[in-house]
Amino acid sequence: MRQCDPPDAGNLIGSFMKEQQLVETQLSSQELFRGVLLHAFSDTVSLPDGNTALREYVVHPGAVMIIPLLQNDRGEWCAVMERQFRYAVGQVMIEFPAGKLDAGESRWECAVRELREETGYRASEWAHAGAIHPLIAYSTEVIDIWFARGLVIGERQLDKGEFLEVFTATPSDLLCWCQSGKVTDGKTLSGALWLQNVLAGVWKLDWQPCAVFEPTRNL
Amino acid sequence: MRQCDPPDAGNLIGSFMKEQQLVETQLSSQELFRGVLLHAFSDTVSLPDGNTALREYVVHPGAVMIIPLLQNDRGEWCAVMERQFRYAVGQVMIEFPAGKLDAGESRWECAVRELREETGYRASEWAHAGAIHPLIAYSTEVIDIWFARGLVIGERQLDKGEFLEVFTATPSDLLCWCQSGKVTDGKTLSGALWLQNVLAGVWKLDWQPCAVFEPTRNL
Repeated sequence: MRQCDPPDAGNLIGSFMKEQQLVETQLSSQELFRGVLLHAFSDTVSLPDGNTALREYVVHPGAVMIIPLLQNDRGEWCAVMERQFRYAVGQVMIEFPAGKLDAGESRWECAVRELREETGYRASEWAHAGAIHPLIAYSTEVIDIWFARGLVIGERQLDKGEFLEVFTATPSDLLCWCQSGKVTDGKTLSGALWLQNVLAGVWKLDWQPCAVFEPTRNL
Repeated sequence: MRQCDPPDAGNLIGSFMKEQQLVETQLSSQELFRGVLLHAFSDTVSLPDGNTALREYVVHPGAVMIIPLLQNDRGEWCAVMERQFRYAVGQVMIEFPAGKLDAGESRWECAVRELREETGYRASEWAHAGAIHPLIAYSTEVIDIWFARGLVIGERQLDKGEFLEVFTATPSDLLCWCQSGKVTDGKTLSGALWLQNVLAGVWKLDWQPCAVFEPTRNL
């Protein structure tokens, strides 16, 4: 694959603006609300032209999404996916497994935990892919994308109040659902972009055994 | 392209759960906060097992994203994109043009308005692609995806306090940035999935002149 050009090597309409011509800086910050899940702030910011504006946003601890791959006898890959009712959008959604970071947990540890809790699978190899900012207009959330393979099934350990179904989808089915509108979950659409390009051999993954990601413990 | 299988024709682990085994129903709803942008609620819901749980979420009017395409002398397509500082994530982000629905506006009218205001472009042809639920865990937001072509440049009309830069990117640059982590905006990653498959001829668009989308006005 050819080397990436930096974004500022694109074909620009006019000259490329410097960061400081776009950046907003915090003048003050006020907590709007602290709920069980949502923690929201309203900040007054200084705009690039010196004026001020309000910015409201939700603070989030971060999350991970896992693209778990199974291979059949013919060497074909399929992905482990979930169906889950999402109250905010009022629909059963088709998604890749995902979950929020616990305090003190690394992103890989979170990926291992969420995969096991939600699907029952443990993976022998992992690859860190990329990251998604799902809602840059009003959330700090970032979702780390991990691929997992070498899957061995065990027991699920769903959180209390968590109801979801695990199934497998072929890449062609998944892409078909992304086009037809059966899949509209943003993180899963982004995961489909990764899966499509990884399986085509265009985007390379750096697969590693679990030991590489495990924290060094004091004996 | 072959017909899509419905999701429930996938390879299931166990039998496929019915909607009612996953659905949560509202018992009560309480407004958490009404800000300038954020409007949040906390609902008590009944779970499939009869227990109750709290669900906190942000209500959003909906949005559109536009993938505007330009063609050069050699017939190659490139996309009109933006660089914009996003305070919630503290970074200048590379994005497709997008914006929130105004009251009474159709999604297409919103797409036309946002494209003109943010980039200055007017398009002669439009195609509705799909939809993204960017954050199903705690936002009702849905982003409609539109493609635009036949672009003619005019004057930008940025909102007060809006600072953004318009540039063009080749599809290969965009996909490279998605892989390298230069593009992490969720809606833009989903847009890249659409752009890649549309330009490959795998996903078809139904291009239409503006007149098809224009509301019939009483004379």
